[in-house]
Amino acid sequence: MPPRLTRAFAEAEDVRDELASFREEFVLPRGVVYLDGNSLGPLPKATVERVRAVTEREWGRDLVRSWNDHGWIDMPERVAGKVAPLVGAGPDEVAVADSTSINLFKLLAGALRLRPRRRVILSESANFPTDLYAAAGLVELLGGLELRLVERSAIAAALDETVAVLLLTHVDFRTGEMHDLKALTAAAHDAGALVLWDLAHSAGAVPVDLDGDGVDLAVGCGYKYLNGGPGAPAFAFVAERLQAGFAPPLRGWMGHAEPFAFEVGYRPAAGLRRLQCGTPPVLSLAALECGVEVVARAGIDRLRRKSVALSDFFIRLVEQECAGAGLTLASPREAARRGSQVSFRHPEGYAIVQALLGRGVIADFRAPDVLRFGLAPAYLRFADVWDAVLALRDVMESRAWDERALKVRSRVT
Amino acid sequence: MPPRLTRAFAEAEDVRDELASFREEFVLPRGVVYLDGNSLGPLPKATVERVRAVTEREWGRDLVRSWNDHGWIDMPERVAGKVAPLVGAGPDEVAVADSTSINLFKLLAGALRLRPRRRVILSESANFPTDLYAAAGLVELLGGLELRLVERSAIAAALDETVAVLLLTHVDFRTGEMHDLKALTAAAHDAGALVLWDLAHSAGAVPVDLDGDGVDLAVGCGYKYLNGGPGAPAFAFVAERLQAGFAPPLRGWMGHAEPFAFEVGYRPAAGLRRLQCGTPPVLSLAALECGVEVVARAGIDRLRRKSVALSDFFIRLVEQECAGAGLTLASPREAARRGSQVSFRHPEGYAIVQALLGRGVIADFRAPDVLRFGLAPAYLRFADVWDAVLALRDVMESRAWDERALKVRSRVT
Repeated sequence: MPPRLTRAFAEAEDVRDELASFREEFVLPRGVVYLDGNSLGPLPKATVERVRAVTEREWGRDLVRSWNDHGWIDMPERVAGKVAPLVGAGPDEVAVADSTSINLFKLLAGALRLRPRRRVILSESANFPTDLYAAAGLVELLGGLELRLVERSAIAAALDETVAVLLLTHVDFRTGEMHDLKALTAAAHDAGALVLWDLAHSAGAVPVDLDGDGVDLAVGCGYKYLNGGPGAPAFAFVAERLQAGFAPPLRGWMGHAEPFAFEVGYRPAAGLRRLQCGTPPVLSLAALECGVEVVARAGIDRLRRKSVALSDFFIRLVEQECAGAGLTLASPREAARRGSQVSFRHPEGYAIVQALLGRGVIADFRAPDVLRFGLAPAYLRFADVWDAVLALRDVMESRAWDERALKVRSRVT
Repeated sequence: MPPRLTRAFAEAEDVRDELASFREEFVLPRGVVYLDGNSLGPLPKATVERVRAVTEREWGRDLVRSWNDHGWIDMPERVAGKVAPLVGAGPDEVAVADSTSINLFKLLAGALRLRPRRRVILSESANFPTDLYAAAGLVELLGGLELRLVERSAIAAALDETVAVLLLTHVDFRTGEMHDLKALTAAAHDAGALVLWDLAHSAGAVPVDLDGDGVDLAVGCGYKYLNGGPGAPAFAFVAERLQAGFAPPLRGWMGHAEPFAFEVGYRPAAGLRRLQCGTPPVLSLAALECGVEVVARAGIDRLRRKSVALSDFFIRLVEQECAGAGLTLASPREAARRGSQVSFRHPEGYAIVQALLGRGVIADFRAPDVLRFGLAPAYLRFADVWDAVLALRDVMESRAWDERALKVRSRVT
């Protein structure tokens, strides 16, 4: 039987933490344990100054000249170049643009053109809904296609010669369960299909080796573990070997080979610049760049090590302190199959999350019964985990569930 | 012969200016005359404080709870409700989302579904390229369609029974020439076609009466006369009568009837919320909201009156001070056929614009020979116009054209 966990143990872990100094890089309100960085990453301190400088000095003082003088025009590529190594991609294999939903559409449409004889987009029914909505929208728009949804366990078997593209989210948004990206990519390729991975809950928290694992296409989110701010721009990956044949279905002047030539006809820009459509959102890109820079300095491997340690500690502690409270682990117990979140199920999950909020612990709820706890490693301490679980114990013991809270609408992913 | 224009006349006009106080609402660097607000509107002072508050207090302090507590989740609709009256639309007829390029795709695809027996998108070859690129991308994606481009003078005659949608930009980006929106809308309807107006160079500067003129669809830009900041979110208009049948081709969770129910199947939200795709860009929306609020308070009719007066003054003054310098008016002389910019042609246009920059006058150049001067009425004074034209006269007389500048890349729209 393992030794009983104590706050002293947690504090000792914090002393040993090689990422301890990174907590100082974030604005974190006093008295709050933030376990929702998998929904919205917190504000990096550097972002405060950077957004102010872009607003007041670049936009305010230098006005339209900033497109050249402050490099606004190259911001999407510059930020993409910083995202790329976090997901095992080359600097020319990532674009930063638009939203995850829009980028899904671009890449799915591109994938279907690369597999013109195949008419099926295969995904799982538990995928994050926006992925399914984007795919269904494309299917309906183009006609003659099928979005085929199967259970998780049936994915490999469903990869047949009709499948053009396998669309999966690497880390499940409810349970934190992580697909075997390498094995499923290989299985898709064995069946002649392309694969499109949604890295929304991976980028910045879980090492991903897109090039090493031979991935074709991927998208990801800027506002979770990349700390880019609410509604930050998203990213898209297209393997270099596929780029030359990649016809962008959503076109705009910023994806043209020469935007300022104002040609009547569209000629795609070289490489992934062709995934750009409209004018890049400078304020949002500046914030995203700061968030990505913090993650890059922390280092994805160190982040993963700490994420696993925090998550293992969290699970053990909940089971030690809240035994018999009816909380069932919804995440894989095995760290290798888990992202950077731990979920439990409880029929009163929503009310429990609201009661935790009243105790300064911000977690999240996903219908019908999932309590999501994001263990973001860049700024969380083991002592924070201790405090959060003690608050959870208090909520469960006192049954202090705020029934009125059930009427409040849930929050964003 | 009209009386000779003087600086005293300009100063007297400024004293009479009913919008004079609005200049104080903008950050405008000393020693600069900014005639490029048709490319990037300047920074409203209120935006500085608002962006700081959203960043530091809402994101930094209140974190993910701000989606509810600070109304982030309703920001797109709130901002859209403020844009709507500026373009003669009802509050439920406008959505704020994504970029102009992306919104063009959404509305064109929707329009084609509303006219399923017609296969032509009709536009003019001088339209802003992003409009043509978006349309051509859709045509190529769907197949069996045609993007038909004609000269301006041939538009009405080209409206035949094959045309599904007429796609035009209200105010030409090069010359400032304004289409007769009402007449062309009626002509399109007479031919059984829908009409989609791009209001990029209209919104915030020229009164538009979308409902009164029976317009079907429109898009517009947030970062020009709406002063929303570089790459600000764009807007889209769908007439209420068309909304129920409007199937969004680009889908995401924020356009779902119940985003937080996480349903596998897509059900479009009521009204134009269905045009939302991904998570809304909160920082950018906050900046846009401030910019729109300034325009709304100034009042679109007062803005137009001053815009016309400034533009007429500018034309007369250039012709008085720069006579014989080889500058040819490229904009309509008649104010009713002109937006809020005045363009001249000159073979050395690019070099002249660069030389003006060295004298503190920021204007813009569009290949091959167009000098664009944006006469944004919210913050420009008649005395600024005087100073700008005197600088232009100096440039033309001294032929002080910086040849090296020809190698510098042009700026954004």
